[in-house]
Amino acid sequence: MLTLGIIGGMGPEATQLMYKSIIEATDAKCDQEHIDMVILNHASIPDRTAAIKNGNTAEIVRLLQKDAKLLESCGAGVLAVPCNTSHAFIEDIRGSVGVTVLDMIEETAAYIKHRRPGMKKVGILATDGTIGQALYRRALEKQGLEPYEPDEAAQKTVMKIIYEQIKAGKRGSIEDFSLVDTHLKKNGCDGAVLACTELSVFRANHELNSFYVDAMQVLVERCIETCGGRLKEKKHENI
Amino acid sequence: MLTLGIIGGMGPEATQLMYKSIIEATDAKCDQEHIDMVILNHASIPDRTAAIKNGNTAEIVRLLQKDAKLLESCGAGVLAVPCNTSHAFIEDIRGSVGVTVLDMIEETAAYIKHRRPGMKKVGILATDGTIGQALYRRALEKQGLEPYEPDEAAQKTVMKIIYEQIKAGKRGSIEDFSLVDTHLKKNGCDGAVLACTELSVFRANHELNSFYVDAMQVLVERCIETCGGRLKEKKHENI
Repeated sequence: MLTLGIIGGMGPEATQLMYKSIIEATDAKCDQEHIDMVILNHASIPDRTAAIKNGNTAEIVRLLQKDAKLLESCGAGVLAVPCNTSHAFIEDIRGSVGVTVLDMIEETAAYIKHRRPGMKKVGILATDGTIGQALYRRALEKQGLEPYEPDEAAQKTVMKIIYEQIKAGKRGSIEDFSLVDTHLKKNGCDGAVLACTELSVFRANHELNSFYVDAMQVLVERCIETCGGRLKEKKHENI
Repeated sequence: MLTLGIIGGMGPEATQLMYKSIIEATDAKCDQEHIDMVILNHASIPDRTAAIKNGNTAEIVRLLQKDAKLLESCGAGVLAVPCNTSHAFIEDIRGSVGVTVLDMIEETAAYIKHRRPGMKKVGILATDGTIGQALYRRALEKQGLEPYEPDEAAQKTVMKIIYEQIKAGKRGSIEDFSLVDTHLKKNGCDGAVLACTELSVFRANHELNSFYVDAMQVLVERCIETCGGRLKEKKHENI
């Protein structure tokens, strides 16, 4: 089995949830049937959306490349980055190492295309950084899907849930989320991507139905499969 | 702030819980106020209790020392090992690196002595390996406390909870735990240590009162303090 390297800590709670989800999704009866991992909780990496807004991304790229190389030197054979906004730099990360670097965004768009045939118009719930870099818009279009980005007011609510609630250690307001949910449905979305790992944390804290596809959960399954772990059988398609 | 290195994966769920507990116990309003960590989920390390029983510990010592050096080379300034049984080799680990290696067992015995004055006779719920090596017995005696090790039947139940339930991905049977709880109280214990990190997972899955001191939670707090993170204020002493 290959060792998984996780460039994480962006934020810490999301990386922790990813670790938990990998363990839960692995079919293992003892410690030794789980995959080996090296997880970086690199919490001190500067905020990605702020850096993109300020055009000041060189330092982040340097740190992400350094982390990728570190994980490669630790023996990781597959790398994953449980931060959607950081995927603005995924090609920089890929260029710095010789091992496989999974792309959560490409994987999620492909997952929707192949496993959620009824989902044509897809809402994107993400940071301003992810939206501004058109990360999901382009990936969904490449799969022939119609991306939908929330309007300014709804996007502000999404940012509030991510920064003022989840990143601040709170559970996240279901009332705020409902405003966004209503907005997406009014605008004809068939579903939406939780395209920020803090929203994956929100999903773990609340009950969200299969209208929402959780990008981090797609990444979790791809990590286990790519490393050679055994995935638990699922009763229904709901990630 | 110092980076925390965690030699984990023994078992994976316990290390995951430790990661979660560190995040939850840190007073942080944004990602950057959390401590940086490098977490090894070294699930493939052979079973510690089995190795101690077979007198075949050289390979485990080699792997633990390799992990410690790896974490040191990754920039970790403080190391922790969320596996009580592995503390049989804590001096071997310490000897292999130049950075601080926290001792969960010494820390827990000191915690009971100083923060739980009513707890004189202390039950030890641990693997056969931890019991056989007298890890807690010696540490508690050093603090002037009276250790109590469960009788053979109760010890079998503890091992069943650890191996057949928690390590197998189950929640753990509260009925089985009750048998042990009754046994400890019948034998005059004032409290008991959850001295296996799988039992810390059991505690997270169920409601256990302050009769039980969770060794991993003691370690969690010492990790945050030693690395220079800010501990959240607690309402009452219950770890």
